[in-house]
Amino acid sequence: MALKSWVVSANDPQTDFPLANLPYGVFRHQHSQRIGVAIGEQILDLGACASENLLAPLAAEIIDACTASVLSPLMAFGPEAWTMLRLRISELLSADHASDDTLHRVASALVPMREVEMQTPVQIGDYTDFYASIHHATRVGKLFRPDNPLLPNYKYVPIGYHGRASSIVVSGNEVRRPSGQIKPSLGAEPSFGPSRSLDYELEVGMFIGAGNSLGMPIPIDEAEQHIFGLCLVNDWSARDIQSWESQPLGPFLAKNFATTISPWIIPLEALAPYRVPVSARPEGDPVPLPYLVSSAAKGAIDLTLEVSLQSSQMRESNIPPMRVSRGNMRDLYWSIAQLVTHHASNGCNLRPGDLLATGTISGPAEGSEGCLLEMKHRAEPLRMPNGESRVFLEDGDQVTFLAFTQREGLPRIGFGECTGMIIAAV
Amino acid sequence: MALKSWVVSANDPQTDFPLANLPYGVFRHQHSQRIGVAIGEQILDLGACASENLLAPLAAEIIDACTASVLSPLMAFGPEAWTMLRLRISELLSADHASDDTLHRVASALVPMREVEMQTPVQIGDYTDFYASIHHATRVGKLFRPDNPLLPNYKYVPIGYHGRASSIVVSGNEVRRPSGQIKPSLGAEPSFGPSRSLDYELEVGMFIGAGNSLGMPIPIDEAEQHIFGLCLVNDWSARDIQSWESQPLGPFLAKNFATTISPWIIPLEALAPYRVPVSARPEGDPVPLPYLVSSAAKGAIDLTLEVSLQSSQMRESNIPPMRVSRGNMRDLYWSIAQLVTHHASNGCNLRPGDLLATGTISGPAEGSEGCLLEMKHRAEPLRMPNGESRVFLEDGDQVTFLAFTQREGLPRIGFGECTGMIIAAV
Repeated sequence: MALKSWVVSANDPQTDFPLANLPYGVFRHQHSQRIGVAIGEQILDLGACASENLLAPLAAEIIDACTASVLSPLMAFGPEAWTMLRLRISELLSADHASDDTLHRVASALVPMREVEMQTPVQIGDYTDFYASIHHATRVGKLFRPDNPLLPNYKYVPIGYHGRASSIVVSGNEVRRPSGQIKPSLGAEPSFGPSRSLDYELEVGMFIGAGNSLGMPIPIDEAEQHIFGLCLVNDWSARDIQSWESQPLGPFLAKNFATTISPWIIPLEALAPYRVPVSARPEGDPVPLPYLVSSAAKGAIDLTLEVSLQSSQMRESNIPPMRVSRGNMRDLYWSIAQLVTHHASNGCNLRPGDLLATGTISGPAEGSEGCLLEMKHRAEPLRMPNGESRVFLEDGDQVTFLAFTQREGLPRIGFGECTGMIIAAV
Repeated sequence: MALKSWVVSANDPQTDFPLANLPYGVFRHQHSQRIGVAIGEQILDLGACASENLLAPLAAEIIDACTASVLSPLMAFGPEAWTMLRLRISELLSADHASDDTLHRVASALVPMREVEMQTPVQIGDYTDFYASIHHATRVGKLFRPDNPLLPNYKYVPIGYHGRASSIVVSGNEVRRPSGQIKPSLGAEPSFGPSRSLDYELEVGMFIGAGNSLGMPIPIDEAEQHIFGLCLVNDWSARDIQSWESQPLGPFLAKNFATTISPWIIPLEALAPYRVPVSARPEGDPVPLPYLVSSAAKGAIDLTLEVSLQSSQMRESNIPPMRVSRGNMRDLYWSIAQLVTHHASNGCNLRPGDLLATGTISGPAEGSEGCLLEMKHRAEPLRMPNGESRVFLEDGDQVTFLAFTQREGLPRIGFGECTGMIIAAV
């Protein structure tokens, strides 16, 4: 049923990047930085395609945007342009493609993934992080308020806060353990030193495409048109710094030392066949306020999310990473459209390349916790295959997120990995 | 004692911009955007100075930065370059200046302030807002916790949070009243509509010059070398949205609809003669942790700050703006160096053009409150000269901040104004 590509590795049933995916990224190769599209184990260099005149049917300004070194010009166009470009790239890579000459020219625009260094895909203007998983909010809330874990605003307001854009790094970068003020217990004096409660947070990010003008909200039925695509986000968190600094203005240094994103941006169009009905709100939950209710809701995204962990001891003993949790994006309480619309509901302007993340995605069951903090509810600490155990991350630990979606009769689509290794504090 | 300029308006004792000030800004004039320095009622166009070869004694890359259309390249150099450029500009504008020919060329690089439109001086990467006034924190805390207004972390942690960079506008822009979720009382259901508790917050902003690398803290004794200069900031706040959304992650839509900055960036060097000893911490307050203690503290900044308000009725009746408060930056609990060092203490990277704001600056006495919320402690609501009164801002209200410093034998240095008028919600 699914279309095949003449790029052989794209037809492997286990690839993240079949012809049906076509995610965008920015890569460095031979000292230049270009825009590309992942296909199997290759990258289609869009700058080279433009030079080879392979994008000719498209408008000149779209072709121009393909020759940029970041994705922001392409992001700014909006969904019509994205669809046209996606269609053209799909034609170029499809096995049904016509002439040998064209195929030869397209092949010359392919770069093997293993030869490149992926970059952050755009200069991120503003980064916002939400708190859209009710299972995460409930488990974290229980640690502080066992009898009343969810705050009264949770089922009305898609809670969010501003994160730090400068410290967003792309998958593969090491993450230095932060130091900060820590107050070990109620009576103790705070002291300054390396965090002892370093955690990851498993999230999905949305890159904003076309923005809105300052002062003008985004109606819920138009919200998804402003989303260029999705990636994975690891919102590294120092829990000990967080608990001492967060009142009354929220997390700050506990989060802004590093955030890791996966390098490929998956277009919403690629994910369209994998949408599923939003689960009904539990009985008794309030109906969302009208500005958050869509007459044409596109459904949740059925995206499986996995976290794996490998310690330095495991690496040295050639023990592969251990999966520590598996969740699904469909378990979010708020949809991506609701997050975008809420963000702009006061007139706040979103700009091309802004990053919005969902917040930690957790499911209801044990084994679907999106961060280590939530695993405090388990009877046992996390045990690794070599006998080590973890409450929080140790130096040398490598945390890797994966995401994929699949459905009977359709190819599997993956996000590529989002990985980072903890290195010792300064 | 003070040097005179041959630009006559710079010698007016009431000007904000004498020869001793020389703040940087970005202006539009005759369809081009350039960097300039304020002098009296004129702007010295640095691009024109470069073309006229007036900056010749400086290094080529500094001259290059002067021809840019934003200040970030100049900011990135660091204090040595700033000092050299400042010295050269001071020479060019000083009344002692030598040749008539040079003077003629400098005069041709002057643009009258009234002919330009000021711009945001740089594309702000990240915006951080602190909470450095203990008087503000105490008065606001009292509204929620009358017996225990200050949270236990306040005297240890310079509390801060991330703000929104996209919605920062320059003085003179109108500010649209935001809509949002509002929950009028404990039992009531929330509804969505225009904020009824719109407030201003009087703050000082610091523009970061040279940054630090991700993972590398900034020692307290080097902190001020990373500050390019200061401006005024109005962190507009919708108190009703804020009180409902802020738990547990802090303010979000209550603040990110607009932030107004004054257009001129006052170099720290210009403020050096106006530094005053930091007031001793009240007896019993904890000593700051060592990373926040400077062996060479430069002192607080003796900067008088004023807020004035003019309603549309007052404007129509030609009643001038009424001063509603006067405070001083020296009343801050945390110094600007402490804010910078704390921000980078976990390795968070600051970049040229990042904006850090102090948070609302209030003094201990009635009349020095930096926002309307704090005035709830007054016996009477704010009365205007035409009989109107205010608890929060109404549509048509124009809020203007001014700041200046003066000292016996030295000229008065001002910041220029930071003003914005509220317009009706969408």
